[in-house]
Amino acid sequence: MTDVSTPPAAARRDAEATKAAILKAARHLLARHAHTDITLKDVAERAGVSPPLILKYFGNKNTLFAGVMSFDADAQDLLDAPVAELGAHMVRHILSSQRERGVDPLARIVFAPLHGEHGDVLRVNFRTQVVDRLADRLTGPDAALRAELAVGTLVGLGVMYGIARGESLRASPIDDVVRRYGPAVQAQLTP
Amino acid sequence: MTDVSTPPAAARRDAEATKAAILKAARHLLARHAHTDITLKDVAERAGVSPPLILKYFGNKNTLFAGVMSFDADAQDLLDAPVAELGAHMVRHILSSQRERGVDPLARIVFAPLHGEHGDVLRVNFRTQVVDRLADRLTGPDAALRAELAVGTLVGLGVMYGIARGESLRASPIDDVVRRYGPAVQAQLTP
Repeated sequence: MTDVSTPPAAARRDAEATKAAILKAARHLLARHAHTDITLKDVAERAGVSPPLILKYFGNKNTLFAGVMSFDADAQDLLDAPVAELGAHMVRHILSSQRERGVDPLARIVFAPLHGEHGDVLRVNFRTQVVDRLADRLTGPDAALRAELAVGTLVGLGVMYGIARGESLRASPIDDVVRRYGPAVQAQLTP
Repeated sequence: MTDVSTPPAAARRDAEATKAAILKAARHLLARHAHTDITLKDVAERAGVSPPLILKYFGNKNTLFAGVMSFDADAQDLLDAPVAELGAHMVRHILSSQRERGVDPLARIVFAPLHGEHGDVLRVNFRTQVVDRLADRLTGPDAALRAELAVGTLVGLGVMYGIARGESLRASPIDDVVRRYGPAVQAQLTP
């Protein structure tokens, strides 16, 4: 619903902010309730928007949730660095996503057990969109195992930050954590 | 309910196996449903025992769930090695717990968001019984941060194995994973 007096760029910004709020609300609910128990109205209430606005942006509940259960866009940002610098980049990306936006690119994989068959969709997406994509870029023996271990370190970092709410981790400068944790990730990438 | 003809040692083994089955059932349900939505009958059905048997062993639902939400016994086994060898020991312990018993000493922290105020109990237990206990054994700067990071790597390993079901990780010999991942944990302990 763009007011005719709103300049197009501002309207686009509003639309993006609204979409982000809807996605964040859906993520929040999917971390706490089974897929089947969540209604569009629940998402709308939490996001502070009307259900029709969700339909306008995302089509329906299933397409909205399919978006939340995809790691495609997240993996693109997460993996956006040369392999030689990828450990530090990925650690920094996890921490800044958590700190600046309160979201984590990977951590929602942990809620797979909540969602029955939808949990398997989450697992398959996680494997094909994140782990396999990383493995394809690695050279040397056991690339698939090393990709799983590297992604495991990142999921653990996100859980410690966002779910366990590790106090030292949340209080430390990002650079300090990157310096300490980046090499642990990198060791799986270029051993 | 021990039959008079059962030798005491066998009866004790039976009791231990039954208790373990009840705890495993409670863990399973607490990974999928909110604390308040789970009944004693649900746990009994999943464990294949009668509700009164759960009461006999655990008192009531709250004491049973408090047991599941404690990391005390798990931390004892997890941390049972000299600091110089602790990285390898903890990685091996996570993998063998998952492979041999289908349980993880730490991974249930990820379900904290499901459980409202009980989730905070889980977080406090996790911090005091696992992270702080490890931090107390570390020397050098930033011990609290390093303990959080080390525990993060272990949680990530458990999530990758048990929840994301990483195929290479599950197919690899434990020794291979310990050799690749142990140093990443150890680097936080003795940097």
